[in-house]
Amino acid sequence: MSRKIAFIGLGIMGKPMAINLVKAGHHVTGFNLEQSAIDALVAAGGHGAASIADAVKDAEVVITMVPADPHVEQVILAEGGVLESVQAGTLVIDMSSITPQTSQKVAAAAVAKGVRTLDAPVSGGEAGAVEAVLSIMVGGDAADFAEAKPLFDALGTTVVHVGPSGAGQTVKAANQLIVAVNIQVLAEAVVFLENAGVDLAAALDVLGGGLAGSTVLNRKKGNMLNREFAPGFRIDLHHKDMGIVTDAARAVGAALPLGAVVAQLVASARANGDGSLDHSALLRGVERLSGREVK
Amino acid sequence: MSRKIAFIGLGIMGKPMAINLVKAGHHVTGFNLEQSAIDALVAAGGHGAASIADAVKDAEVVITMVPADPHVEQVILAEGGVLESVQAGTLVIDMSSITPQTSQKVAAAAVAKGVRTLDAPVSGGEAGAVEAVLSIMVGGDAADFAEAKPLFDALGTTVVHVGPSGAGQTVKAANQLIVAVNIQVLAEAVVFLENAGVDLAAALDVLGGGLAGSTVLNRKKGNMLNREFAPGFRIDLHHKDMGIVTDAARAVGAALPLGAVVAQLVASARANGDGSLDHSALLRGVERLSGREVK
Amino acid sequence: MSRKIAFIGLGIMGKPMAINLVKAGHHVTGFNLEQSAIDALVAAGGHGAASIADAVKDAEVVITMVPADPHVEQVILAEGGVLESVQAGTLVIDMSSITPQTSQKVAAAAVAKGVRTLDAPVSGGEAGAVEAVLSIMVGGDAADFAEAKPLFDALGTTVVHVGPSGAGQTVKAANQLIVAVNIQVLAEAVVFLENAGVDLAAALDVLGGGLAGSTVLNRKKGNMLNREFAPGFRIDLHHKDMGIVTDAARAVGAALPLGAVVAQLVASARANGDGSLDHSALLRGVERLSGREVK
Amino acid sequence: MSRKIAFIGLGIMGKPMAINLVKAGHHVTGFNLEQSAIDALVAAGGHGAASIADAVKDAEVVITMVPADPHVEQVILAEGGVLESVQAGTLVIDMSSITPQTSQKVAAAAVAKGVRTLDAPVSGGEAGAVEAVLSIMVGGDAADFAEAKPLFDALGTTVVHVGPSGAGQTVKAANQLIVAVNIQVLAEAVVFLENAGVDLAAALDVLGGGLAGSTVLNRKKGNMLNREFAPGFRIDLHHKDMGIVTDAARAVGAALPLGAVVAQLVASARANGDGSLDHSALLRGVERLSGREVK
Repeated sequence: MSRKIAFIGLGIMGKPMAINLVKAGHHVTGFNLEQSAIDALVAAGGHGAASIADAVKDAEVVITMVPADPHVEQVILAEGGVLESVQAGTLVIDMSSITPQTSQKVAAAAVAKGVRTLDAPVSGGEAGAVEAVLSIMVGGDAADFAEAKPLFDALGTTVVHVGPSGAGQTVKAANQLIVAVNIQVLAEAVVFLENAGVDLAAALDVLGGGLAGSTVLNRKKGNMLNREFAPGFRIDLHHKDMGIVTDAARAVGAALPLGAVVAQLVASARANGDGSLDHSALLRGVERLSGREVK
Repeated sequence: MSRKIAFIGLGIMGKPMAINLVKAGHHVTGFNLEQSAIDALVAAGGHGAASIADAVKDAEVVITMVPADPHVEQVILAEGGVLESVQAGTLVIDMSSITPQTSQKVAAAAVAKGVRTLDAPVSGGEAGAVEAVLSIMVGGDAADFAEAKPLFDALGTTVVHVGPSGAGQTVKAANQLIVAVNIQVLAEAVVFLENAGVDLAAALDVLGGGLAGSTVLNRKKGNMLNREFAPGFRIDLHHKDMGIVTDAARAVGAALPLGAVVAQLVASARANGDGSLDHSALLRGVERLSGREVK
Repeated sequence: MSRKIAFIGLGIMGKPMAINLVKAGHHVTGFNLEQSAIDALVAAGGHGAASIADAVKDAEVVITMVPADPHVEQVILAEGGVLESVQAGTLVIDMSSITPQTSQKVAAAAVAKGVRTLDAPVSGGEAGAVEAVLSIMVGGDAADFAEAKPLFDALGTTVVHVGPSGAGQTVKAANQLIVAVNIQVLAEAVVFLENAGVDLAAALDVLGGGLAGSTVLNRKKGNMLNREFAPGFRIDLHHKDMGIVTDAARAVGAALPLGAVVAQLVASARANGDGSLDHSALLRGVERLSGREVK
Repeated sequence: MSRKIAFIGLGIMGKPMAINLVKAGHHVTGFNLEQSAIDALVAAGGHGAASIADAVKDAEVVITMVPADPHVEQVILAEGGVLESVQAGTLVIDMSSITPQTSQKVAAAAVAKGVRTLDAPVSGGEAGAVEAVLSIMVGGDAADFAEAKPLFDALGTTVVHVGPSGAGQTVKAANQLIVAVNIQVLAEAVVFLENAGVDLAAALDVLGGGLAGSTVLNRKKGNMLNREFAPGFRIDLHHKDMGIVTDAARAVGAALPLGAVVAQLVASARANGDGSLDHSALLRGVERLSGREVK
């Protein structure tokens, strides 16, 4: 069933996602601060809008995909934002990665206007967005999730309803916590193995085949073996995410002893100028701590 | 080619390994402090010995599989041990999980008697030993590894030469480091997700499908979801292993910021009486830190 | 020189501070949400006001002393707040303990109205406030500090200008960081010494006399020896403060490896129901981690 | 009462201590591997010996002061060591800083020969040894402590019996734990304050006057303000000590979450080439983590 969708935020992630919705047969009207991204969407069969108000006024579904909490507040809640112009009954799906608290604030503001919301952050990066193989973690009402499911299926391959408003963001935060820690411990192991004179490539092979195996090990061991840290997922972004998970865990009284230490190490990587490298460059921090030359 | 093998240490791991060598056509003479294990080996087609000296006197290859560093020193280096009775030229393979330092000490003592050694710790647990699907990480000379390879292939499916004497133990230590940290961060994520009101089973599904996925998540999420902590791999043993990796990393000047914190948390689990539970019971420690009832 | 002072926030700290200013000869007009505190100030020779506007309209100096960031924003920046009614040229001194960022936000808003500000958080607790022996850490212009110095001298014994706007809050945050860590490591030492069978009182005496000595050891060893945790300074408040220092350090790119771990342990104490105990009760957390009965 | 004392180990600490015993009127016979130190003792009124056996054969009290565990084992337990030549009933006082376990091993071996022991490590450094103002933490029997008290009073000003054999070492270990953590958090505070643009000298003054005050802050703030790290107490030695306290706490089941992190940071300082600097140089590690130039 074709839907009328407004898509706000056509960046590195948003643009290919919007195009994938066009390919799936939907009527997609995009808005972005830079016109070139709108032009690309139009070229792919979508439509452009001159403002958020213009984009959402006839929409059945609004999707927002912007960098961080302040942008979500700006785009949805502020003057000239989605809630000002959208019709009652519309479903607003925020796919940005932000704090659960902001998602819940958006949901509460929407309810007051008779608007429904889902928080639906993704993982999988630019490649996952382009190839429509994202993982999508969705918070909100089950009925709203069911309605949005066909749209999500046009964007990703793992689409899961994980709980009420904010739950999608909570799961995304947990994802970033686990990823950061799994990378950091792999980096600690690499420096330990190298310092001990072990054949690192052979060691990583055998480690990957047992209980120490992980997707991080599979995907990032090449970066570590070759000291090749082109992103990928930038440390600056993981730093933002560690702030989210630390705050969110604090808010619900959950202890994160490893998470707190990793948050410091990610911040340290950034302070050392590695913010634009792939998060596997946490290896460089372990090298610094171990007094090794950092290449 | 059938070899004459002496197998010292027929415990939970050693007995099925010795029997698998018999099945592969080797002449295996076992020694163990308790006679019942020797009887089991004999019943499976092996041979029994009355002492270490008796077991090793005609052996081409000696395999030792005992609990910890002092046992290895006792069985190989002490009076009445392997090196006292073995013939020059024999290959002694220690498959126990001990410190790299002790492996190197054994190797040096052996060289002085014209005896060759490999350190070849395993992962995979009792099930892996019985089913001959262990991972085996081997340190020592490449030629000795090549000679032993057919024996290892009778015991496991992933058999890798990772470097000189002690390197096998180093990789095993790295394995235990990564496993402990991956379990701990999964436990932190579980408590965070539950406290935040997320559907945990759904969340773990989506986490497992992305970059946060790991063998630990796949194999241990059931333990965590059901608070079912029958071992598995006991926290007491992981505590011993964290001591090994902490000491070994200190010896080579490698920083383990996460490893050091996890070592404390594993010790804390043991101090709280959880030593005989599976290592996935690190979850209970996060529950304690978070002020939750521990079931 | 007697000054006309408006004092907003007559709580546990504010009331005795306002009374000390009266004793020093100043004309102090107080406002508080509960009338009883205003009555107490009047009984001590001060004056009462019916609103913030009423209190500040003729003031030369305004002092605010409220619990946390939102209260400062409410009392100074919001509708009906200090900046709405105060005359240009007035000196507004916020003595609350809040984030440096909020202090800087207040300063910027004040400048826009021709109002001068100082941030001047204190340490020393209720007893220090009553006895006028507070330590006061002051951020802002040197000339404004010089003008306010006689007032501060009526409230405390250690009064130091530490830098520009926000610097007072930064130093207060550093103070709370050091205190939390010094308490926590003392607690770790206590459990270690007790578990090892040492005479704890004798040990703390000798430790206090050497390089391990600290004000925390002197003032808190009694709490720890007797497991007597009546506040003092509540863990709930220290938890708030660890949030401030963690965020502030993150904002300026300073690594806090110990600070991050302590923040988790303070949060854990609170999650375990110890929030209303003195911060020396961090000892109870070390007992929990060490599997000991917590009395 | 003049005693006949054998003093083994006349290094940086031992030589001035032996001389102080001479000054107090005792008959002191010294032994050291390098003759020059013996000559210095003789010049000060003491006596020299050609071997440990020679030094201890007529002694009422033997004092040992050597660098680490292996030296204590060598000097007391090994062939040619103290226990081989000393008379039954002699009091052997080991003032080295070693593990409690080795002190207990020495005590057990001595008991078997009818020899009494005390472990009596010191703090206060070379200056404290020269000026006879050491702190001395003593483990062993109360009667033996009472007998030795006059000797200790010739060496230090704070002399405390803290428990049975090994207790002196345990307290010394706790001392080093607290000192390392108090230095590290001061370093974290310094970088935080500097990054935030605070007047550091003023801030440290006000911090020192409140609950954040400590002997570490008083004695080490100059090092930190001036980046002047001439030892003092070398990081290499503190690294050795962190190994002792980590192991000792592990042995008694005491959790050291901060201690474990600090042990890593001390090791990291050493790995970065700062081992011969004063332990206040932990500041350099915080600078590295914070991406700052290390001067």
